[in-house]
Amino acid sequence: MAQPTISTQDIGILDGAWMLRRYLKEAGFPEVELVDTPGYPGVWASIDVGAPKTIASYGFYDSRPVGDRPWTYRPFSAALVAHPEHGRVIIGRGASSPKGPLVSWINALEAMIKTGSLPVNVMLLFEGEEIKGSPHYPAMFEAYRERLATADAAFTGGMTQAGSGAVSVNLGFRGFLVLELRVSGARWGRGPNQKPLHSSLKNVVDSPPSRLANVLASLTDAQGAPRLEGIDDPILPPSAEDLSLIDDLLGRFGEGGVAGAVGLGSIPALGDLTGRELLMSYLYSPSVNINGLYSGYTGPGTEVFTVPEVATARMDLRLPPGLTCEHTLKCLREHLDDHGFEDVEIEVLADHDWSRTPVDSEIVRAVVDSYRARDLDPTIWPYKGGGGPWSLYRSELGMPLMNGAGLGGGGLRDAGDEYLIVDGNEKVAGIVESQKSQIDIVERFANM
Amino acid sequence: MAQPTISTQDIGILDGAWMLRRYLKEAGFPEVELVDTPGYPGVWASIDVGAPKTIASYGFYDSRPVGDRPWTYRPFSAALVAHPEHGRVIIGRGASSPKGPLVSWINALEAMIKTGSLPVNVMLLFEGEEIKGSPHYPAMFEAYRERLATADAAFTGGMTQAGSGAVSVNLGFRGFLVLELRVSGARWGRGPNQKPLHSSLKNVVDSPPSRLANVLASLTDAQGAPRLEGIDDPILPPSAEDLSLIDDLLGRFGEGGVAGAVGLGSIPALGDLTGRELLMSYLYSPSVNINGLYSGYTGPGTEVFTVPEVATARMDLRLPPGLTCEHTLKCLREHLDDHGFEDVEIEVLADHDWSRTPVDSEIVRAVVDSYRARDLDPTIWPYKGGGGPWSLYRSELGMPLMNGAGLGGGGLRDAGDEYLIVDGNEKVAGIVESQKSQIDIVERFANM
Repeated sequence: MAQPTISTQDIGILDGAWMLRRYLKEAGFPEVELVDTPGYPGVWASIDVGAPKTIASYGFYDSRPVGDRPWTYRPFSAALVAHPEHGRVIIGRGASSPKGPLVSWINALEAMIKTGSLPVNVMLLFEGEEIKGSPHYPAMFEAYRERLATADAAFTGGMTQAGSGAVSVNLGFRGFLVLELRVSGARWGRGPNQKPLHSSLKNVVDSPPSRLANVLASLTDAQGAPRLEGIDDPILPPSAEDLSLIDDLLGRFGEGGVAGAVGLGSIPALGDLTGRELLMSYLYSPSVNINGLYSGYTGPGTEVFTVPEVATARMDLRLPPGLTCEHTLKCLREHLDDHGFEDVEIEVLADHDWSRTPVDSEIVRAVVDSYRARDLDPTIWPYKGGGGPWSLYRSELGMPLMNGAGLGGGGLRDAGDEYLIVDGNEKVAGIVESQKSQIDIVERFANM
Repeated sequence: MAQPTISTQDIGILDGAWMLRRYLKEAGFPEVELVDTPGYPGVWASIDVGAPKTIASYGFYDSRPVGDRPWTYRPFSAALVAHPEHGRVIIGRGASSPKGPLVSWINALEAMIKTGSLPVNVMLLFEGEEIKGSPHYPAMFEAYRERLATADAAFTGGMTQAGSGAVSVNLGFRGFLVLELRVSGARWGRGPNQKPLHSSLKNVVDSPPSRLANVLASLTDAQGAPRLEGIDDPILPPSAEDLSLIDDLLGRFGEGGVAGAVGLGSIPALGDLTGRELLMSYLYSPSVNINGLYSGYTGPGTEVFTVPEVATARMDLRLPPGLTCEHTLKCLREHLDDHGFEDVEIEVLADHDWSRTPVDSEIVRAVVDSYRARDLDPTIWPYKGGGGPWSLYRSELGMPLMNGAGLGGGGLRDAGDEYLIVDGNEKVAGIVESQKSQIDIVERFANM
């Protein structure tokens, strides 16, 4: 945690990759190697103990940036301090995600390797660009595809308890399409071309940012709900298993508890949906999100006044079951062309299709059984969380996928003073119990 | 030119103000003082030689930022080098605007003061925040209003020749309204509130940037032409004097030369206007410009994926004769309210009303006569250039206004290697000739 690994700011990633390579060698993996990419390297490790079953494991070692919210301790101090609620914690950017959980998983594997008790063969393929949207994971996955395809399940141990001690199991991930929409005068053939024009000419010149506003306004209404023709067509209706899980969730949360459960808290839902309607929308509706919007001068105060020559929207679209990135891109391109925006560029930055693992898969049962054996009743979601490249193990190779399971945890992953719980308390497991729970899951899976 | 004065980046402004104060004292002004503002100080200077006529003079001492385009010489080296076309030049950010022209004007005044030949009384009120949109000039102007009101004309000497040697006279300035439009979840009562939400919630939460896109799309069409109801109502039709000047301009440029003359070059005009139509649109139509647009993450690459809680558009509106900032703001507020955008905030950052000086004013005639005496035939524009606080001298105090006149010049004010021509050549006057031409204008005005 003292080693920064911030991929989006080019800080410390190669040191982090090298450190991770050493950890894996020291843990006893006979095969460990850095994986070259056009960006930052991945790390591959493998151990074959001649077991009947094999697990493949996704992971990442880059953290979010330090951010601009206040820290009491330096973000890379790895300070061991007393937390008012959770006992001793380690403070640091990445403590709760990904570094605490990742190293906990490596430690659990090391314990099994060193004691000769590892009951499965293991392949790890970790990346250093998750926070960037995993632009190169698909290529790394492709490079190891034949070997990964021999695994029986994809599983990554971790520390997944909420501060309340609650655990959940996510069977599915929505698709995730990251792209930039760009209006440029050069491509449009109108408005400022290679450089901005003085804004005193605005009344006689076309405007890229005004055009972008009109493009974006055509994609969603003023609330942000998508109006992209055809996007809903391939969306799958909830399966019988989904409907049963949804009934379980509603029974657990109550109609009024859905907003809190999905993470909205007290913020009113789009369309003021509540209860089952809100849950169904959360699980089965697509989103068209603007996560970054920029054109012209974006610094403090006012500045030189220009008509900018380029305007850009960074977007991410979350795609429910059945809706592929390919179909979505086709709808988007057709929408733009149909609305006279043929010149607007789409640059795909990342694309990960949806995946769903059946609830009765061995790896899912191993996780659920392990939690229940420790008197924890997991919330089982048919789909939840962000989609990502881990879905490849299910969507491309067809193996059941549990991306992150195990006790223990931390908090404040977006804010200052991010922490990892060390000793644990009556609600949340500490580091040692976390590793034991991960080993328990692996052993249950091996013995099924 | 070795002293940076970049108001938008808080670099060197106080040093620049102090240096300017010293220059003015050394030039012989008996009254020189810094003028306190909530931002950077202005500089006031005054000399009363008991002349029948008095001129008041606007000026500014802050420059644009260094920018990201390449420089051959360091931007504050003030290097004296040979230019392939213009002979010796001084290189530096601010060389062509404002530092060369400003110091040339002060030198011209110093020459008249020191030789006892100053034929008018002079008041100078300079600011250090022009590049920021002059947020505090109106308050400074108000503080000196009674004294400024005693002037007969507002005049600022300078270096205004184009690289071809051509000179122009601008009789009018459009109004200039700078504002921010802001959509915030907190004020809207929907969407992310104090901080962003993870974008995996986007399909069940309202989106400030999508709302902003819809707001902006309601203000202009996809080309950028305004559709703000009522904004055109108070716009004045061209006067007989304007129509005569427009005929002169068209005769000078030819129908095909208007695009080049207004500064569009080869860029197609909004609506593909040409000739007289283009010129009339340039002079008499309002603009609604987005000069800065930002929301969420605007740095390089992709980043944490969120639904941003705030989205902002920086806008500047150029207002033709008759259209006040007050009326424009009223139209904008009504438009937003009528379209269901009551919560969208408007923050006014700067507002300067239009002004127009008659072509037969003494100060205009002094400038035109001086140019013609040197065999230069000035292009006379009824309105041109950016509006700004100099218009106050005309719109508030009713005096004729010539903001910048005199031979000499430089170039590349937006780019690297900005320069000021030192010795001059067959096309453009050098520094000495520049100062002589400014003195000639002042003397012609005094003798009318």
